[in-house]
Amino acid sequence: MNPQNTTVLTEKQRPLPDASLLALKLDRNSGIPLHRQICNGIRDSILQMRVAPLSRLPSTRALAKDLGVSRNSVLMAFDQLKAEGYLVGSTGGGTRVRDFFPDATISELHQRPASTPSPEAQKNRLFNRTTTSSETPYVTPPIRPFAPGIPAIDRFPIDLWRRISNRCWREQGQKLLTQIEPGGFLPLREAIATHIRVARGVTCDPAQVLITAGAQQAFHLCCQVLLRPRDLVLFENPGYSGALGAFRYAGASLVPVSVDQEGMAISEVEAQKRKPTLAYVTPTHQFPLGMPMSLPRRLELVDWAQRENAWIMEDDYDSEYRFSGPPLPALYGLDESRRVIYIGTFSKSTFPALRIGFAVLPQDLVASFAKARAFQDHHSPVITQATLCNFIQNGHFARHIRDMRNLYRKRRDILVSSLAKSFGDSIAIPHSDTGLHVTTLLPAGVDDRLVSQEAARRGLMALPLTGFAQTNLARGGMVLGFGGMTEIEIREGVKVLEEVVSTVAGTAAAADH
Amino acid sequence: MNPQNTTVLTEKQRPLPDASLLALKLDRNSGIPLHRQICNGIRDSILQMRVAPLSRLPSTRALAKDLGVSRNSVLMAFDQLKAEGYLVGSTGGGTRVRDFFPDATISELHQRPASTPSPEAQKNRLFNRTTTSSETPYVTPPIRPFAPGIPAIDRFPIDLWRRISNRCWREQGQKLLTQIEPGGFLPLREAIATHIRVARGVTCDPAQVLITAGAQQAFHLCCQVLLRPRDLVLFENPGYSGALGAFRYAGASLVPVSVDQEGMAISEVEAQKRKPTLAYVTPTHQFPLGMPMSLPRRLELVDWAQRENAWIMEDDYDSEYRFSGPPLPALYGLDESRRVIYIGTFSKSTFPALRIGFAVLPQDLVASFAKARAFQDHHSPVITQATLCNFIQNGHFARHIRDMRNLYRKRRDILVSSLAKSFGDSIAIPHSDTGLHVTTLLPAGVDDRLVSQEAARRGLMALPLTGFAQTNLARGGMVLGFGGMTEIEIREGVKVLEEVVSTVAGTAAAADH
Repeated sequence: MNPQNTTVLTEKQRPLPDASLLALKLDRNSGIPLHRQICNGIRDSILQMRVAPLSRLPSTRALAKDLGVSRNSVLMAFDQLKAEGYLVGSTGGGTRVRDFFPDATISELHQRPASTPSPEAQKNRLFNRTTTSSETPYVTPPIRPFAPGIPAIDRFPIDLWRRISNRCWREQGQKLLTQIEPGGFLPLREAIATHIRVARGVTCDPAQVLITAGAQQAFHLCCQVLLRPRDLVLFENPGYSGALGAFRYAGASLVPVSVDQEGMAISEVEAQKRKPTLAYVTPTHQFPLGMPMSLPRRLELVDWAQRENAWIMEDDYDSEYRFSGPPLPALYGLDESRRVIYIGTFSKSTFPALRIGFAVLPQDLVASFAKARAFQDHHSPVITQATLCNFIQNGHFARHIRDMRNLYRKRRDILVSSLAKSFGDSIAIPHSDTGLHVTTLLPAGVDDRLVSQEAARRGLMALPLTGFAQTNLARGGMVLGFGGMTEIEIREGVKVLEEVVSTVAGTAAAADH
Repeated sequence: MNPQNTTVLTEKQRPLPDASLLALKLDRNSGIPLHRQICNGIRDSILQMRVAPLSRLPSTRALAKDLGVSRNSVLMAFDQLKAEGYLVGSTGGGTRVRDFFPDATISELHQRPASTPSPEAQKNRLFNRTTTSSETPYVTPPIRPFAPGIPAIDRFPIDLWRRISNRCWREQGQKLLTQIEPGGFLPLREAIATHIRVARGVTCDPAQVLITAGAQQAFHLCCQVLLRPRDLVLFENPGYSGALGAFRYAGASLVPVSVDQEGMAISEVEAQKRKPTLAYVTPTHQFPLGMPMSLPRRLELVDWAQRENAWIMEDDYDSEYRFSGPPLPALYGLDESRRVIYIGTFSKSTFPALRIGFAVLPQDLVASFAKARAFQDHHSPVITQATLCNFIQNGHFARHIRDMRNLYRKRRDILVSSLAKSFGDSIAIPHSDTGLHVTTLLPAGVDDRLVSQEAARRGLMALPLTGFAQTNLARGGMVLGFGGMTEIEIREGVKVLEEVVSTVAGTAAAADH
């Protein structure tokens, strides 16, 4: 059964829920505005699955009548829920609950990994700190075609940024010279809190926002505050190498957890001798495979964290770049027990050399993180924070993201169609609707590390999927970034890749012979 | 015997060494310029103590004749050695080897500390990471009179800085947007290498310079790369709380080592069950007491590190602000076995919110530190590095330091004379010729923590000396910053302090009664 067909049929057959199914209880004396009560009520219905994915909601007019409120209140509630990603709507087509289930399966990708690392892996768990390891490069690799995670910096409005920075120096002067709170420049924390409430459904106080030197420092701080050596960390397999490095430095014991079509398969984690301390996940755009985590899986994960008293690190990278429909709202919003640390970055939405990211912390952790940050490096430079703050507040950030989303969509289209033209059915691209890279599964039997090596000789940086895995995978793949590449570079890069794969596959076939 | 009198007599009686005593062997075929050979030869003679402190050197004319070289070669060598702080010279007075011995004694300050922490301290060694401790503040304290380590930010040429930053954006544009090596912006590393060679006698390759987010991150990186939990760290007692916090986060076992008139008393460290991994020292301006480490003590420390295969972290803070004569050259230059990590910061020589410092690493450690930095936060923002680089290269940095040294000398003079006027002989200020604070010893029996608390109620931040100590001290004191205070603020602050000390001493006397 093709899950994509099912989706289409389901969408058409799904009945309209009436207002009673939404179970909205309004309290006119609570002091909470009606539009917010409606918004919260519908969100709860969706999260508790009283309303199925893809259900069509009553019209705003009908719902307003049923509830005895102004139509404007319902419109405001719907707008907020669309911004948060719970609802999707088109003119004429009505408003629907969005489809939280990813649209393709890659379960064939994985052999089931052992739920604990081998004794060998355990032994090598800590980096050998004073020698270099060939596995973990310590120099920033040069940007080459298909390097993942590189934005289109040639499209960044650098002159605008310069003028904003200049204005900050002129207007704020000495305020930008003195040390500030470890948590960061307060106006920026406020701007971020506002942005993620609307864009990601993350409701928090600005005091919970900790400005970091990119997402990488947020990982590092989580390790410093939450982990002790040998603590267990659930880690997506395959998963993000930057986070992996931070955990290894902290001396954590990594428990690789397989990723299936719905994201990290938390239920497959076998009972550990000790309780895991945290789980690191990329629910919006699993790195590197690309699927979003399904809503049931999200709820399961939050439930696990509550039950086990564990933490969840939600790395929400690339959430700005969803090419079809709004992104899924953040895991953070599902968790009432305050076990989620939400992590975002501006490296891909502005430019990498800015070195600004942030973490949204549960209230209980705010003081500990601030203290850790103070003893690590005090805080990020104030001028960069002030400039970014102004860039967000004046709408430049939202506009830039919108422009870039369109640009990346085009680049994604060219990459996917070029790959289809060159490789036909021999490769698969299960997920390509979010982010700045796609992961392409290679034909079975083709060694992705050999492809990567050969591609490197030809000037490409096509990283092998198996390089991100803790265990053997049934099928190799290439992680292909496209954000910083022009159309011509993409087309030419794919041609080179075609030659490379053909050479490697040919050599493998000859060796089999 | 007053050591200052001894110094004066010695200076007058010390004979002129002749060129043979300097044991200069020149090799005209080595390819090394003659002025550099002369410079290296004299430096070696001083370090190996073949030439005594305060010795007068032969005239440049006589030495040139003896060696059969041009007078210009000798002049260049002398200039370099003066810049490095090995020689001092005045017109007419000839050139002398500088006095490496500090000019006052505070040995009465300390009871002998236990060489290992108590079992109690051992138990509490690790921070309780997810709760806050009242001992270790996690918010940046507001700047109040006498807060230590605050520069005169109102004198920073902010408009010049703004224009330089603006020009960097205009001229370097996209280069400032992309990720760079973890070690930092190469032109800045080169500018720093040049600056510290001349100013601090630290000769290194720019590749050995790692740009950090202030000195604090250099401490943190040293911990991450060099230490494992429970490793022993020799720590000055009293010592710098920022470094202490970094070591505690790393789970290190601190071994407090007493500080006498010559700095950390390395020979007094009793044999430990395990070998210490590193020693943290502030040789230019011991924090918080203020004496420089004597040359014999420096050589002893380097020797210890070589023998024990241990590391030395040399925190060279405040070296820009020596008010009489050049500062002692850095410990780094004494160590041929590459066991010293030299740490500098721009927080006090430019402004704290810039968040730029640096570490000079032994070649063997460069790769490991870069890797640790990459997994911690990649690198510092590029625009701040580029702006600082230009600021240094165009001579603004040198000029600003010179201006500030004059300003701080005046402020120091006012503070010291105001204290003398208010307190007379009842307090002592053993060291006041370097840096942005002085440490004032209180009359015996006056509790410095009570003075600090009472001063805080009156709006002052006069930190108690005992707050920086791991063991009981024989005499308390106040650490009084003056860098960011105006003359009036200093005078009025001292008056308040006089009232506070008098109240606390009075209460103590009444209680004794």
